[in-house]
Amino acid sequence: MLNIKTPTLVLDTEICRQNIRRMVEKANESKTFFRPHFKTHQSAAIGEWFREEGISAITVSSVSMAKYFAKNGWKDITIAFPVNQLEIDEINELAYHIQLNLLIESEETALFLSKKLLASCGFFIKIDTGYHRTGIDPADIALIDKVLQSANPAKLYFKGFLSHSGNSYHAKSKKELDQISQHTACELLKLKKHYLDEFPQLILSVGDTPTCSQLPVAEGIDEMRPGNFVFYDVMQFALGSCTLENIAVALVCPVVAIHTNRSEAVIYGGAIHLSKEQASLLPYPEPIFGLAVSWDGNNWYTSKLLGYVKTVSQEHGVISLTNDDSNLKPGDLVAILPVHSCLTGQLMRKYYTLDGEVIETMNS
Amino acid sequence: MLNIKTPTLVLDTEICRQNIRRMVEKANESKTFFRPHFKTHQSAAIGEWFREEGISAITVSSVSMAKYFAKNGWKDITIAFPVNQLEIDEINELAYHIQLNLLIESEETALFLSKKLLASCGFFIKIDTGYHRTGIDPADIALIDKVLQSANPAKLYFKGFLSHSGNSYHAKSKKELDQISQHTACELLKLKKHYLDEFPQLILSVGDTPTCSQLPVAEGIDEMRPGNFVFYDVMQFALGSCTLENIAVALVCPVVAIHTNRSEAVIYGGAIHLSKEQASLLPYPEPIFGLAVSWDGNNWYTSKLLGYVKTVSQEHGVISLTNDDSNLKPGDLVAILPVHSCLTGQLMRKYYTLDGEVIETMNS
Repeated sequence: MLNIKTPTLVLDTEICRQNIRRMVEKANESKTFFRPHFKTHQSAAIGEWFREEGISAITVSSVSMAKYFAKNGWKDITIAFPVNQLEIDEINELAYHIQLNLLIESEETALFLSKKLLASCGFFIKIDTGYHRTGIDPADIALIDKVLQSANPAKLYFKGFLSHSGNSYHAKSKKELDQISQHTACELLKLKKHYLDEFPQLILSVGDTPTCSQLPVAEGIDEMRPGNFVFYDVMQFALGSCTLENIAVALVCPVVAIHTNRSEAVIYGGAIHLSKEQASLLPYPEPIFGLAVSWDGNNWYTSKLLGYVKTVSQEHGVISLTNDDSNLKPGDLVAILPVHSCLTGQLMRKYYTLDGEVIETMNS
Repeated sequence: MLNIKTPTLVLDTEICRQNIRRMVEKANESKTFFRPHFKTHQSAAIGEWFREEGISAITVSSVSMAKYFAKNGWKDITIAFPVNQLEIDEINELAYHIQLNLLIESEETALFLSKKLLASCGFFIKIDTGYHRTGIDPADIALIDKVLQSANPAKLYFKGFLSHSGNSYHAKSKKELDQISQHTACELLKLKKHYLDEFPQLILSVGDTPTCSQLPVAEGIDEMRPGNFVFYDVMQFALGSCTLENIAVALVCPVVAIHTNRSEAVIYGGAIHLSKEQASLLPYPEPIFGLAVSWDGNNWYTSKLLGYVKTVSQEHGVISLTNDDSNLKPGDLVAILPVHSCLTGQLMRKYYTLDGEVIETMNS
């Protein structure tokens, strides 16, 4: 039984396991290698639920996350973040013990690793297929060639091309999402064709939750790396990647004030719990910081929507109440479905199951 | 000496101590009682720097923060957050050991505390002077009377009226800020006049960093409770509360990629380090997530501005470079002045001084 007094991140393990199973099945059906991103949950215990479904290789977003999961028995890890040269000692330590794959997008980093690596690593070349955050322009064959030539094959073996279509988060329709997915696949396939003779084992790796949730895996893609789907959140709901019932985490918060004249409830639960991530969601007139639903002490109920979180400051959240029958009062608890479960999980550092068990993370 | 490999929050202790001294002097000169808010730094060690300047009473924003500072020798603490009824056991434990002041804004909570408190507490009535987050409308004398009548004087003694003019963060000019400050003081003074005969000891407490930094303390105000000034940040700079040289913390981050074609540097340093707080700052064309300045291994230099953080995702930050001479390359370090130092401090959990000493916080 949960005895909640302060903002608490509750995890419905059954929803979470269903989310995992659904994505595993999708990967299996399309014969795509599934290398889930673990940056959303950051938990060795939740990692085991993936292992139970047959997962053996994972994606992480930092060297410290790779160290944590390596210590917890994961032997094949891709760090899907441009190599941080300053962590070369930690990278060498990891590369000595596990199958480590790195991300390279510059000649400098390829030369640096060729010189400094003490054990061999796989590497992907990061390709920018339209998100414009990191990666090499797929048309820039000269730069890709330079990276490949700079990589000392005794230390670095080329695994393939990797892309993250983060622009899918700005897609306004499923059609637009499909165009993004097709464009990514098309650009990567051109590269595969160009380099396949030289590197017959090369693979193409993609992975963002909107595309992986809503669309079939594009033809020719070998590996998928979504992460957020393990919990989903209001942003994914707004994008059409999940239903509200698929969201596996909720921040349960005490009500501390009611302002009936403006139909608002103030909760203990703010930016240091939910993060300041916002999402636009119809029919709400402004970007929201979460959806408030009913909590009965044992479960949350998406069918009993109370309102939306309209503002957050450090510890305060303000709920705009849209359900006149809510009858909330100070001392009650409400459940907030977070806008971005990765950030909420990072801030809260651990999860409580509906049975009251604690699930630790690397930040606990 | 600092040996930085991953995003690290560096604190310039001299700037921080100057910020503290300046605010202490301002309070002394205006004969206002200074009860600084400790939610920004959340550190017992930094609390000692306040004590060295003569501070003996503090403000916090949660029961857990009150517990931490009580354990570290603070005997007079106001929790400037509406009472969370679910933490009554922790409140009783605190009230037994220290002078604890609570915030009440409803009859229900006054009745609840009157029944459940085991040791006596001071209480403030929270007044909403225009921010519309929490508090009672100052014109609602009927409700204020009800709260006062519901408060059992054997358990709860009335300290006065407290307001937080968070709307000062939306002031577009110093004139507008002054209007907000005057309005707050005027509303509180009317209440003081109304209740002074009955409660001759009652005080008026205000406190937000923009007002406390930029304006003289308004006539008739007895206590001030700013917090952010201890570090300041880019938001306060944008509001005119400080210079860039007054900002006492910077997140030092490794550069992991350079995109010269679009004048961008990608850093290891994102939403889980800086938070997703944004600020509008001229001349930048879009809300920013931080300002990037030069870091030479020992210090940061606000005179060497490199650009602004245009986006952050979980671990990535993208700097739009505005200085063509920056010559950044992967493996370099840059310093990011955060938009909101309270949230960055909360996320990073500890500070490193320029000498490489660690300063712990309640979240370490």
